[in-house]
Amino acid sequence: MNGKWSQLWLKYDSKKECGNAAFLQAVTICGFDENHAVVKNAIEELKMGAQGMLGVAPSISAGGCESDKNGLAIVKVAKQEENILEEGYSLEAKDGTLTLKACDEKGLLYGIFHVLRVVSMEKSLAEVNILCNPSNPLRMYNHWDNMDGSIERGYSGLSFFYENNEIIINERTKDYARLIASVGINGVVINNVNVKQAATYLIDKRYFQEVCRLATLFAGYGIKLFLSLNYAATIELGGLDSADPLEPKVIAWWQGKMKEVFETIPNLGGFLVKADSEGRPGPFTYGRTQADGANMLADIVKPYGGIIIWRCFVYNCTQDWRDYKTDRARAGYDNFIKMDGDYHENVILQIKNGPMDFQIREPISPLLGGLKKTNQMLEVQVAQEYTGHQIDVCYLIPMFKEILNFKTYCKETQDTVADVISGRTMGNKNAGIAAVINTGNDLNWTGNELAAANLYGFARLAYNTDLSAEEILDEWIPQSISTSSQVIEKIKRILLPSRVVYENYTSPLGIGWMVTPHEHYGCSVDGYEYSRWGTYHRADHLGIGVDRSENGTGYALQYHEPNASMYNHMETCPEELLLFFHHVPYTYVLKSNKTVIQHIYDSHFEGVEQVEEMIATWESLKGSIEDSVFESVKARFGRQLYNAKEWRDQVNSYFYRKSGIADEKNRPIY
Amino acid sequence: MNGKWSQLWLKYDSKKECGNAAFLQAVTICGFDENHAVVKNAIEELKMGAQGMLGVAPSISAGGCESDKNGLAIVKVAKQEENILEEGYSLEAKDGTLTLKACDEKGLLYGIFHVLRVVSMEKSLAEVNILCNPSNPLRMYNHWDNMDGSIERGYSGLSFFYENNEIIINERTKDYARLIASVGINGVVINNVNVKQAATYLIDKRYFQEVCRLATLFAGYGIKLFLSLNYAATIELGGLDSADPLEPKVIAWWQGKMKEVFETIPNLGGFLVKADSEGRPGPFTYGRTQADGANMLADIVKPYGGIIIWRCFVYNCTQDWRDYKTDRARAGYDNFIKMDGDYHENVILQIKNGPMDFQIREPISPLLGGLKKTNQMLEVQVAQEYTGHQIDVCYLIPMFKEILNFKTYCKETQDTVADVISGRTMGNKNAGIAAVINTGNDLNWTGNELAAANLYGFARLAYNTDLSAEEILDEWIPQSISTSSQVIEKIKRILLPSRVVYENYTSPLGIGWMVTPHEHYGCSVDGYEYSRWGTYHRADHLGIGVDRSENGTGYALQYHEPNASMYNHMETCPEELLLFFHHVPYTYVLKSNKTVIQHIYDSHFEGVEQVEEMIATWESLKGSIEDSVFESVKARFGRQLYNAKEWRDQVNSYFYRKSGIADEKNRPIY
Repeated sequence: MNGKWSQLWLKYDSKKECGNAAFLQAVTICGFDENHAVVKNAIEELKMGAQGMLGVAPSISAGGCESDKNGLAIVKVAKQEENILEEGYSLEAKDGTLTLKACDEKGLLYGIFHVLRVVSMEKSLAEVNILCNPSNPLRMYNHWDNMDGSIERGYSGLSFFYENNEIIINERTKDYARLIASVGINGVVINNVNVKQAATYLIDKRYFQEVCRLATLFAGYGIKLFLSLNYAATIELGGLDSADPLEPKVIAWWQGKMKEVFETIPNLGGFLVKADSEGRPGPFTYGRTQADGANMLADIVKPYGGIIIWRCFVYNCTQDWRDYKTDRARAGYDNFIKMDGDYHENVILQIKNGPMDFQIREPISPLLGGLKKTNQMLEVQVAQEYTGHQIDVCYLIPMFKEILNFKTYCKETQDTVADVISGRTMGNKNAGIAAVINTGNDLNWTGNELAAANLYGFARLAYNTDLSAEEILDEWIPQSISTSSQVIEKIKRILLPSRVVYENYTSPLGIGWMVTPHEHYGCSVDGYEYSRWGTYHRADHLGIGVDRSENGTGYALQYHEPNASMYNHMETCPEELLLFFHHVPYTYVLKSNKTVIQHIYDSHFEGVEQVEEMIATWESLKGSIEDSVFESVKARFGRQLYNAKEWRDQVNSYFYRKSGIADEKNRPIY
Repeated sequence: MNGKWSQLWLKYDSKKECGNAAFLQAVTICGFDENHAVVKNAIEELKMGAQGMLGVAPSISAGGCESDKNGLAIVKVAKQEENILEEGYSLEAKDGTLTLKACDEKGLLYGIFHVLRVVSMEKSLAEVNILCNPSNPLRMYNHWDNMDGSIERGYSGLSFFYENNEIIINERTKDYARLIASVGINGVVINNVNVKQAATYLIDKRYFQEVCRLATLFAGYGIKLFLSLNYAATIELGGLDSADPLEPKVIAWWQGKMKEVFETIPNLGGFLVKADSEGRPGPFTYGRTQADGANMLADIVKPYGGIIIWRCFVYNCTQDWRDYKTDRARAGYDNFIKMDGDYHENVILQIKNGPMDFQIREPISPLLGGLKKTNQMLEVQVAQEYTGHQIDVCYLIPMFKEILNFKTYCKETQDTVADVISGRTMGNKNAGIAAVINTGNDLNWTGNELAAANLYGFARLAYNTDLSAEEILDEWIPQSISTSSQVIEKIKRILLPSRVVYENYTSPLGIGWMVTPHEHYGCSVDGYEYSRWGTYHRADHLGIGVDRSENGTGYALQYHEPNASMYNHMETCPEELLLFFHHVPYTYVLKSNKTVIQHIYDSHFEGVEQVEEMIATWESLKGSIEDSVFESVKARFGRQLYNAKEWRDQVNSYFYRKSGIADEKNRPIY
């Protein structure tokens, strides 16, 4: 990298020709305005890629939609013509011509990146014949960057958006836009949902000029800029004494403010709001509903085409651990379900995948599909807050696939989470998927080189939910690391099971947590057990787990049937979630014929062995991949192994000491 | 306080006359140089006190040792004349004359403060007839203040010695000197033992001028200034590549440096050194002994009358929790005992009272009296790191009394810790007692007003080890809060048992820890159980405690007999230390006829009830004491009660969940 940031999957280094050069030598553009910023950027990208990968300098010419000369023909079509939808495209190779059709500039851009991807993977363009329409209208990255340069839950250095409360716009910003556009991201939130200090002023003239420049830069890559909003801005910025969403002076202030904002930054997409959560102010403060707050803002930004993305992460974070009735898992559903249908058309509720907080294993939030008349977005976390801090390898796409494939039973058909958040279930347009993202100003963007697979994979999945976790690696590895089939196979062998490996050596059977408080890396079985956060395992000398059945907190009943019954009963509850839904004795026998306690021991010993295998596989790559990448990942594997052993020994020792039940295999427990 | 810092026990507010005015109207001084800084300060203090408390302006005259006119006669005597020793004094009232005799200026100063104390307590000077010689040669406060203004383990605001890496010398500095001189402190260390960053430069010309001014100011109150030294200064300051105590260039550098330091700051007493501890460099780094390091420095400072106080807090702080053999408690003894007799005459080993780290209950360090040929100082902690952060009330003098009264059996007689550290046991002069102190720039100095009793009490005990914990309160309360006998009685009722109360609701039977990691306030039973710090409780479903008997780590055998046998056997081990020395079943029956588990439950419920009683007692003081003091302490009591309940419920729930044994009284456990 020589002191410059990596280009990740857009390296454009020399590739095998595979008969592809001919397709890129001549490019004709028909129906698109060549001076449109997105078209210009797409063509620039094509030139860069063709030159870098194949040594080809494409000639670009306009007009001639019927041109039959060999090369790449870019053709604008009407929406829905040949089933091409907004932001979609088709590619068809025939007789030496590769035809890219799209109905809008974003489709064109994504089509060009598709072409470059095929070249980079050393596949043949001659064999391409595909129609691609985006699975989700909104495909967003959420950055939790603070304006002082720090990143909440960031594990890859500092922010590349801010330094000392100033916005940074430089060459890297453009590379960032290229990278995320190449995988179909069409929206970014560039500031932490916890909006404090300087970030409150992002909607103030103090930052207008820079925000506008950023929005314009992003727009050139088909990306809408969004901001996290400080719900209390009327007080902190406006000097009012209230943030009551029904109070006229509050509304008036927001009207004036939004007029100012959208007139100055016309490309702005809208706002992300975390209200009434973890100490942030919100409508509840004034006895109003979440809908009151969201609708007020939505009505005001509507004339400007703006949308309000309202987070559902609202729960009591000052719970008494002695209280077995209150259940944080219930909170999202309890706080939002009653107002289903009350949210205005340009409000989207952004719902975390699980009811708790991005654990390695959680059930799907019952709010997803529980809401039947409300725009919904899924929020997942690519930043590895609870999944290894990008020290430990944890390929998250298999988890995201599980989430998207989950049948909510909200309708007879089209009832998966993927259906709900794509808009298919309800026919709504304001919907989609967002990820809290794992980037920072580390030269490799994601700390661990292998964590870039999550950055890439999330976006690809957002664009095409049908891709499998393996297919995504089949794309990412050759573009990012090596086209060698051996290398690809080995890295897949590391990444594909890595989520289960991480689960094996950390908290068992869906119970979650057991992490070092605040930091969330490393084991502390009781770390949150006697705290105010609502995150308990309730282990005693006989058993472990939280009773969330109808006999307990009743959380299981928040699901539609048959999910509710399935979770409600110990016998039908999926075992990987057993302790999330039920308090069971250590001697409870699982379908594997193992007791719960033996499962804990076995999975923890197995997890460490699996890490050792991963490391051996990685070691075997020495010489086959770039040295710096090899060494950097190797060093992190060393830390992962240490971490895995600590987890194994602490969890096993904790439960052995508590239960008094010995490991059947007499392995070392302390 | 009106925005100005409190004068604590030197308030000098109006007092009942009690026939005392006559003694203060005329003062004659015989044999002392009136222009000696200490004498001048003493007389100034006398005038201030007499004026403030009794409205008397003393006339001062010199000469006339045989004067028989009424008033205060200050007379210099030869050392040992009338049994008056260095820094000692006698006071005798007879026929309207109060005679203060001393052999040196410090004795004079302490005698004057004694007179003022009697007046402040509203006792009669006519009844005074007393000989006071200091119990300990060195009576020191150790400040853990950092030059950025923070205080390590400080709970009373920021430093009043430093701000932004500059030394502060102002009116408060003088008041500080007056306050500590008034209780007989004769040495202070003004910087944290962890010497880093700017503090390394305290022995550099960058700070010489200010350090010299401070040393001179303190000298005027009989106080020697000491500095904590960075053992690696040869590297960090001197630019050498070594700190090997036997290497000639290292020795040469220190020789030059110490010459420079002592020539510039002639009043300097010497240095405190934390080496080879918790990440600090030291002789071990170079394969040398602790004696090598200490002696090297001691030899170099000897020509200047300097001493080296060398801390014995040396242990492995990267222990593996899985390792049951290594025992942090053993470390101090193991690291220092072999070199007993090797330390030079101007080295003092400073030994923490317990083998671990200032827990609410620990055995006495076996190094105290274990060393038979080495100068020793006792180190206690008045700062309430593990004893409630000056939020919770914890009067520590009863604990210090226990420590001082402990029979080490190092000799047939004069074998208590008090004997050892006073120099009585070995006839040595370089000996004494030091406290990590609890002050900060809060207006009341100690955060909690009641914590000033520890500040006062430690010093008084250092000067006169025979004082009881109750006698000290009988002095401190009337000087600091109220001379009302009702108030005195009530505050004593709060303070005297407060250490046992704190013990009751925190970690049981000497096991210690169970605190929130890093912070050390609040409960976390397993907080340090799986950590690297060597501080474990080893609780499982059957029992708890660390086996430090001959069958375990053997720590018990580090004591002289009969202590070794007493601790080694479960039956004879004092029960308040049972879990420190033995791993016992929860069902083990104590002398109280309670099982260990029932003792845990009972003491924790009792602890909270005792806090509630303390609060009721405090509430009854409303109107009888200054409002601001009443309210400030009341607010902290609220936090103490919350803390005590959290401890009670977490400890009880933890052990109930682990043992499965119910509370006999069926009280709420979670």
